[in-house]
Amino acid sequence: MSTAAPTPIVALAGGVGAARFLRGLVRAVDPRDVTAIINTGDDRRFYGVHVSPDIDIVTYTLAGRVDRQRGFGLADDTFALIDALAALGHETWFRLGDADFATCQHRSLRLAEGAGLAEVTDEIRRRFGVATRLLPMSEDPCATLVELSGGDRMHFEEYLVRDGAPSDVEGVDLSAARNARPGPGVLDALRAARSILFCPSNPVVSIGPILALPGVREALRESTAPVIAISPIVAGAPVKGPADSLLRGIGAEVSARGVARLYRELIDGFVLDTRDREEASDVAALGLRCIAVDTLMRDGDVAERLARDALELADSLR
Amino acid sequence: MSTAAPTPIVALAGGVGAARFLRGLVRAVDPRDVTAIINTGDDRRFYGVHVSPDIDIVTYTLAGRVDRQRGFGLADDTFALIDALAALGHETWFRLGDADFATCQHRSLRLAEGAGLAEVTDEIRRRFGVATRLLPMSEDPCATLVELSGGDRMHFEEYLVRDGAPSDVEGVDLSAARNARPGPGVLDALRAARSILFCPSNPVVSIGPILALPGVREALRESTAPVIAISPIVAGAPVKGPADSLLRGIGAEVSARGVARLYRELIDGFVLDTRDREEASDVAALGLRCIAVDTLMRDGDVAERLARDALELADSLR
Repeated sequence: MSTAAPTPIVALAGGVGAARFLRGLVRAVDPRDVTAIINTGDDRRFYGVHVSPDIDIVTYTLAGRVDRQRGFGLADDTFALIDALAALGHETWFRLGDADFATCQHRSLRLAEGAGLAEVTDEIRRRFGVATRLLPMSEDPCATLVELSGGDRMHFEEYLVRDGAPSDVEGVDLSAARNARPGPGVLDALRAARSILFCPSNPVVSIGPILALPGVREALRESTAPVIAISPIVAGAPVKGPADSLLRGIGAEVSARGVARLYRELIDGFVLDTRDREEASDVAALGLRCIAVDTLMRDGDVAERLARDALELADSLR
Repeated sequence: MSTAAPTPIVALAGGVGAARFLRGLVRAVDPRDVTAIINTGDDRRFYGVHVSPDIDIVTYTLAGRVDRQRGFGLADDTFALIDALAALGHETWFRLGDADFATCQHRSLRLAEGAGLAEVTDEIRRRFGVATRLLPMSEDPCATLVELSGGDRMHFEEYLVRDGAPSDVEGVDLSAARNARPGPGVLDALRAARSILFCPSNPVVSIGPILALPGVREALRESTAPVIAISPIVAGAPVKGPADSLLRGIGAEVSARGVARLYRELIDGFVLDTRDREEASDVAALGLRCIAVDTLMRDGDVAERLARDALELADSLR
């Protein structure tokens, strides 16, 4: 993998929300000045191939090739392979497109050859013309498990995609991440960062697994860089995905303020949406610098403005 | 795999020519009364998946789903995956379609789970609604290698597909087949057959590998069933593929008569095309019963008539 000099802006990232934010960030600054540390807690083998949902969402989005309607997968992809696998008797609730399957097949082949996930991720983002450094949070298996009220315990993708994200979450098991090693470059990137951003991603299952890795919290605490989180909760609800059920499941409040409380020991500043501006004083009471701006990334312009706001907040805290 | 009672008609089969003939054969008789023993000398891993070109051609053709223009692959298949693999830097001269890839991925997954190729082949043909029993000639690796004048030696698919079947063949190496075990059911099927047919396939690289397997020639010699071969050479040329270069490469004459000579010790009867009827006396002089009929399978009617002619010839020799 690339051993390029550390880049000044490091972003902790999950899937769709992070990808949209990063798209704005790389319009605000040189894309080569950004390193994204990406959640791999959602990784899973499907149909014999290694799927890294968040890495691929970020790669495809930064390449301008993501399927905008779904938020994941490749635009204009086809589904002939998955339909044929279904006809051969496979469970196909995880509907990988044909070109998307190629990415995962390529990843699997390279891993089987002995390459690391970081190296393969770097190869793929370069093939997609992405200038931003993308680091898997870990090369070890670190499946995030979701626990439901009936006692069911399942892989996050089973919870999200197969079962449609039921609301009766009772807990989230990050023990795999807690026992995994951070991926190559992850701790170094955090230590060398000038600014650290928590993308507007699910705090429980996207940012949570990254923070659960041994050494990450310590690296954040020891860093002299300002650490800024952007709220993924707007007007008391997640912009996308089941963050509400998951926050409730771990006993947190479903609000911008609730997210700020989760992160409080690790961050210096917090960006929430103007729709939640009345929570800003509660966030400030946590000892965090807080700004309220438009965080609903309807287009690249909003995302770019949001990124600039977050970076300005970081600069003000330096 | 199926341990059904042996079927009365056993056909040795390669790819396109065999598949077209078998399509006619299963119109002439109950498809369940036919067992095809299929060449696996062309098998190879591409992009991490186990491709069995001849098995798939026969399966797709008998299912009525083959791409008729190409003679292989699935009708109306798309090529998104292979194009995406090319964009990721893979050599993609072997252009597997998306649904075709699914067949091969399924096969690879089942093999990785410990299933045998015979079992997987049986599963796949059932999923495709094919009633005819299809037996891989072997479950062992038995790559057919082609030797060219410059000293190059390559896998048959590299010779055929990658390099476009150059004519300077100097030899064909079937040593892998000679050291492989016949697949489950192969020798039993031959021993129990009422009639044995050599499909109009390439004698060198399709039927040749089957005959090279330990025990197959003995089983044919010991069988009381009449053995009939159908010529794949019409008017001094192969109907499809590079049989001319390959026959020349092993020092055989490129003619119906030349094919009969190759098979003479193993067969009782020979079917050649009316266009080659002047060779019938030479074939008869080898001690073989010979008929001349229309062997150019332009459609299912011709293929069915050809199958009936071959079976009648077998019956006349019983």
